[in-house]
Amino acid sequence: MKNFKLLIQYDGNRYNGWQKQKNTSNTIQEKIQNVIKKMTGEDIELYGSGRTDAGTHAIGQTANFHWDTEKDGIYVKNYLNKFLPNDIAVISTQEVNERFHSRLNAKGKKYLYRVLNTDVSDVFKRNYTFFYSEKLDIEKMRKGAAYFCGEHDFKSFCTKSSNKKTTIRTIYSIDINKNGDEIEFLFYGNGFLYNMVRIITGTLMDIGEGKIEPECVVDIIKSKSRYNAGITVPAHGLYLLEVIY
Amino acid sequence: MKNFKLLIQYDGNRYNGWQKQKNTSNTIQEKIQNVIKKMTGEDIELYGSGRTDAGTHAIGQTANFHWDTEKDGIYVKNYLNKFLPNDIAVISTQEVNERFHSRLNAKGKKYLYRVLNTDVSDVFKRNYTFFYSEKLDIEKMRKGAAYFCGEHDFKSFCTKSSNKKTTIRTIYSIDINKNGDEIEFLFYGNGFLYNMVRIITGTLMDIGEGKIEPECVVDIIKSKSRYNAGITVPAHGLYLLEVIY
Repeated sequence: MKNFKLLIQYDGNRYNGWQKQKNTSNTIQEKIQNVIKKMTGEDIELYGSGRTDAGTHAIGQTANFHWDTEKDGIYVKNYLNKFLPNDIAVISTQEVNERFHSRLNAKGKKYLYRVLNTDVSDVFKRNYTFFYSEKLDIEKMRKGAAYFCGEHDFKSFCTKSSNKKTTIRTIYSIDINKNGDEIEFLFYGNGFLYNMVRIITGTLMDIGEGKIEPECVVDIIKSKSRYNAGITVPAHGLYLLEVIY
Repeated sequence: MKNFKLLIQYDGNRYNGWQKQKNTSNTIQEKIQNVIKKMTGEDIELYGSGRTDAGTHAIGQTANFHWDTEKDGIYVKNYLNKFLPNDIAVISTQEVNERFHSRLNAKGKKYLYRVLNTDVSDVFKRNYTFFYSEKLDIEKMRKGAAYFCGEHDFKSFCTKSSNKKTTIRTIYSIDINKNGDEIEFLFYGNGFLYNMVRIITGTLMDIGEGKIEPECVVDIIKSKSRYNAGITVPAHGLYLLEVIY
């Protein structure tokens, strides 16, 4: 039995997120599983590294599936790319140990959030950045970001506590950089709760705009109340960059 | 009577090109005219600098319309942007001389064609570049481009001769540059025939791939036959950059 690990890129705009769900169709997982079924003739489960929200993009989502076959990774990659819609692409395939599991073995994740921070919107970036025209102070946001790093209970920064047992996570780093008209927020952590990257970004933007001071992050974390954090910024500015194993 | 000149940006993917036509709906001109009608209460003609094909984008399309009003350019810009779909944007407005006409007064145009020239496609660029994985020799294409510059009869490089009286045009420059994984073709001329930029780009790519030599351009021009030129590369790699007055 072979175990194929896929590196996947997708434009999330047309989809209801990664995860196949009972009441939701048009998910990315579903699209890929349908092609896998066509290729293998079997109903094979595709294990993703985790969900991404409706509208969220991926530059490096990871998933794996098992298939008893003589075919190799190149065949799998070419077959999938031939039949997948053109907003989902398999970048590479790798045969891995049979026990490898994309979600259970993930040690960390990197996310990117892109804000278009300029006076005039850009029609070409409308689905790929969050357009926000108020001036944002990068130095202040970097100060605020430092308070998020380390192990914390991020209950204030998630939507519902979903079915996760704990809301404690470790953020290794948050880098904030200006790239032309854009501000890029780069998150690296051992895992992220539902909407956590988007709520932290919304909170950092409040800091950048001067609505709250960087030091407030400490109290918002302590309060364990979603109500005290910033807005959940839109999904279409968010990218799953890389899953670390 | 005021004459408003608009600088317009659009993502052409969802549209049947710029020009309102008898048998075609969903054009960019139509979308803007509808909002102008809503704003003015009148059926006012919007004059564009020229057509763009279905799927072609604009970073700097120009258009103008006349309106007997007390309102100023800022009002017009804000009104239009409020009601236009988010893939069409008015970047700026200017009150100009009543006799100014976007098409008749245009002295030149600049177009950009973007080719994604790498092994692996990029889902985020699928609607904004022409993905072509064969290696292209930039130096050879630059040599070929030089033969296009100057005044020539470009009959070999247009689809039908449409209703244009002459197929003679002047190309001032064609710059070809590598930008990361992309090759950018920048055209500047006094005017371009139907599909002319796309057919010249297709021909230059044949040169870059080594299918024909740069010098062949001379004979293809002389032949005055569309059959001898390269393919019409896809519309979604093409951008109207600027109209010069």
